[in-house]
Amino acid sequence: MELLKEAIRKRGSVLSSGVLKVDQFLNHQVDTNLMSAIGEEFARLFVDEHVTKVVTIESSGIAPSFMCAHSLQVPLIFARKKKSVTMDKENVYSSRVYSFTKKEYSEVTVSKDWLCPGDRVLIIDDFLANGQAATGLTQIVEEAGATVAGIGIVIEKSFQDGRALLEGKGYRIESLARISSLEGNKVQFVEESAHFAYNKS
Amino acid sequence: MELLKEAIRKRGSVLSSGVLKVDQFLNHQVDTNLMSAIGEEFARLFVDEHVTKVVTIESSGIAPSFMCAHSLQVPLIFARKKKSVTMDKENVYSSRVYSFTKKEYSEVTVSKDWLCPGDRVLIIDDFLANGQAATGLTQIVEEAGATVAGIGIVIEKSFQDGRALLEGKGYRIESLARISSLEGNKVQFVEESAHFAYNKS
Repeated sequence: MELLKEAIRKRGSVLSSGVLKVDQFLNHQVDTNLMSAIGEEFARLFVDEHVTKVVTIESSGIAPSFMCAHSLQVPLIFARKKKSVTMDKENVYSSRVYSFTKKEYSEVTVSKDWLCPGDRVLIIDDFLANGQAATGLTQIVEEAGATVAGIGIVIEKSFQDGRALLEGKGYRIESLARISSLEGNKVQFVEESAHFAYNKS
Repeated sequence: MELLKEAIRKRGSVLSSGVLKVDQFLNHQVDTNLMSAIGEEFARLFVDEHVTKVVTIESSGIAPSFMCAHSLQVPLIFARKKKSVTMDKENVYSSRVYSFTKKEYSEVTVSKDWLCPGDRVLIIDDFLANGQAATGLTQIVEEAGATVAGIGIVIEKSFQDGRALLEGKGYRIESLARISSLEGNKVQFVEESAHFAYNKS
């Protein structure tokens, strides 16, 4: 998605060879025009998958998935990283998710009230790195007896293992920007490096 | 806002005389049609306040404020309850907020990059009870040298002290649903009880 890649190039910053900061438009300050375009692009990509629910994870997943659920006219559910006080402990699907960035486990939960067998769930997340969060969400969907209709990712770090892990389980993944490298403080996209390799040959 | 009051009546549940559960449409599963209407209503109410930024607090504030920021065509910033790994500790405005529901303090932070003197900030939150979260956000806005243009609340528990606290500081508050009581497992709205009192007199 060219609009997103342009935002990453111009408004993102590379903190290290593994960390891209996009808090100018995605996960702290939110550019609602860009997030709306992203949401509508996910809706377009998965329109034939008969999605009945969109599931994301708090907090950064909410803005990019809002317009997707709105466009598909299905409910959005955001999984909680910490149980809410109004959430009955017995009444949740949960999954333990390891964050390599934060070096800690968190418990991701969805109330049993809002997922049911027969649901076709589109999972949306802001980043795909090692695939731990997305895997946790797929486990929750399957524990509910529902089906993963697909996985939509805003920014994929293609130099990490997440895509291979999820594709290995047979899921359809659509990433709107795929980053092949952050080396040398420079964002390189998968398509660009492929094009570059082609030009060199 | 009648649409919201109807949702609270039909789809909310009263857990105790102090706790209303609205996770069917607001803070776990999200009804994007209702949230869009709420966001647009906030935009309409504050359109003359020359808002330059909308600030909310993760996670439940994001969905109801998204369309407000989008409609006003200004950035949305969601304050973090826990510092992000990509956030420089020296570079944040922060405020310590006590939650009466969770009985714990949390540190609410906004990066200094996204608020500046001259900004006119509309604060949006899902609930107003004791006003602690909203007060924390007003402190952050003022620490940045910016101006609080107003406070928009989705659901106000008018039987708690939040409104008095914030009005005492001179802020304009607009709540889309004002609840006067949750006693006896029943939601009573401020207008209804006023109307009821009028009928009785």
